[in-house]
Parts: sequence; structure tokens; C-alpha cells
Amino acid sequence: MRVKKITDLNRISVEEFKETKKTPLAIILDNVRSLNNIGSVFRTSDAFLVESICICGISATPPNIEIHKTALGAEDSVDWKYFETTQDAVAYMKEKGFSICAVEQAENSIMLDELKLNKEKKYCLVLGNEVKGVQQEVVNLCDFCVEIPQRGTKHSLNVSVATGIVIWEFFKKLT
Amino acid sequence: MRVKKITDLNRISVEEFKETKKTPLAIILDNVRSLNNIGSVFRTSDAFLVESICICGISATPPNIEIHKTALGAEDSVDWKYFETTQDAVAYMKEKGFSICAVEQAENSIMLDELKLNKEKKYCLVLGNEVKGVQQEVVNLCDFCVEIPQRGTKHSLNVSVATGIVIWEFFKKLT
Repeated sequence: MRVKKITDLNRISVEEFKETKKTPLAIILDNVRSLNNIGSVFRTSDAFLVESICICGISATPPNIEIHKTALGAEDSVDWKYFETTQDAVAYMKEKGFSICAVEQAENSIMLDELKLNKEKKYCLVLGNEVKGVQQEVVNLCDFCVEIPQRGTKHSLNVSVATGIVIWEFFKKLT
Repeated sequence: MRVKKITDLNRISVEEFKETKKTPLAIILDNVRSLNNIGSVFRTSDAFLVESICICGISATPPNIEIHKTALGAEDSVDWKYFETTQDAVAYMKEKGFSICAVEQAENSIMLDELKLNKEKKYCLVLGNEVKGVQQEVVNLCDFCVEIPQRGTKHSLNVSVATGIVIWEFFKKLT
């Protein structure tokens, strides 16, 4: 099992990425504070051909050297747009026809392993602040909540890890 | 969809975690450098009841304030053990009956979405260094490789995100 070299991987260029058919999936970051987490979400979104990222509120935007350290250039491939409030981003994405899904531990949330998706639809995930999660006022505007089942001692996962797990599950089900 | 409060989540205590039946899954960290990544792997391992983590080579071990910042106490719930070389950790886990799986982009790797697991077996994932990945000499000792399909411009995912995605997939298939 020879480990592949970078040249074996045949990745697409930024120009090719812009032209490539995307996964019908977008992301909203609701006041995510850590630049490390924002960069990591860009990198994951690049890998799974996410359409775009809405960056909201206190979340920093590219160009930013700390975001670059974890995004490693994915901030140039994945489209993004800044909104002063997350409510504005949700309204914008609804207008564009996306079904809005908060990733949050909430009453009546759907467990991620039980989630069914419709390949004819476009979805937009909302990921929340490291401490506060997705704001209740934003959850109220969402079409549904998805929850990652967790069995241990801690109350939540790191936001970039949670984003990775949920994007992976949507990518598998939508492509 | 009311967001659950911490008290609604009914998480188990560290003592209960130690006694709880675990997922038949362990982790080997092959010279992972970032304390942030090591802490994040602890936090994810806690959530999905991972049996233990083997920390190898240059990877730092708890107690460590930087690991604690992302592990948030999960370094107390999840068992871990340090090995000077990753080869020693692989030999130790094989001796304990684990099937060893490198998470790497390699020839003849199994794509994660096509992976089939046996619920009667125990698995141990090997995750590699942020720059070098899993060492070829370590891959040579593994029973199989699993690869996360990636379609974008970058060559790999952040190691804590990759660990999260693969642990989630194993957790779903083994429990």
C-alpha cells in the first residue's frame, strides 16, 4: 500500500474549482470566533465541493493570515460572503432556494445517522459559536435541526470537527 | 426547536465513562505535532466512546495546558498510552487483537464511503503527522488503508477533521 505522492492526487486548480459542479450544499457560520476553525471549515468545504460559505457577525473574513494557516488556500477556491447578522444570511440563502438546517442539539432535532435528504434540493448548514452554539433566534428561522449523537462526558464537539462530520454525511447523501 | 441546555444533555461522568462499554475502536497518533489537533482528537474520542489513544513519537501527552484547551477534560476520560515509536504502538495493538487501519491516501486504499466493517472485530485507526501523513514504514504494518474521497484543490483535510469523519463512520458501523 504505497502512500500516494501529491502529484498522484491530481487535484483540480482554483480555476477548475470555480467551474466545477458543486455539491448542493452551503454553510453559514453564526459568529464563529476562532480563525483556526474558520480556516478549517474552508479547507473541508473545498474538499467536498461546497457551494459557498456565509460568514456572519464577529467571524473574521479572508484575507487573514490566521485563517490562511488552516485554510491553506481554500479561502481562494470556495466562494464566501459576509453578513452583519446571521438572520440576514439565513434570509439570503432561503431566497436562493436553500433548505436551512441548524447543526445543534435541540428539541425535535433529527439525529445525523437517521437523516434522509432529497437530492433534488439544496441545503444550507448553520454552525454556531464555539461557546454559545447556534443562536435560538437563528434556530427559529431554520427549516430543521440536525444533531450529532454523542455518548461521552463532554457536551459538544469542536466546531470544525462537527462541520466536517456533517458536511461528509451530506456529501455522501447528495452526490 | 428549543436549543437544549447543558443540563438537558445528561452526559455521563468521567467515572461512568471508564465503566461504560466502549466502541471497539482505538486510535494511534503517528507523530501528530499540533497540541490543538491532539486535544481535538481526545474530545472526539470521548464523544464516540473510543477505547484508547496511543500517542507516538513527537506527539505531546497530557497533562498539557494546550491539549487541555481543545480536549476540555476529555484527556481525563479517554485512556491513553505513550509509545516512543509508532511501530511499537502498532505491534502492541495487534497483540491486543485490533485490526490496524491507516487513514491515508494510498494505492489500494478503501474509499471511506465503500468501507464495510465486521462488528465482531476491533479496529485501530492510525492518523499521521500534519505534513508527512502516516509514515510508509507504518502503513506497511497496517492491515488496510482507508481514504476519505476529496474533490477539491487541496491535498488533504486537517488531521482532527479527518479523524472526526473516520471515527464517525466507524462509530455508525460498529454500534
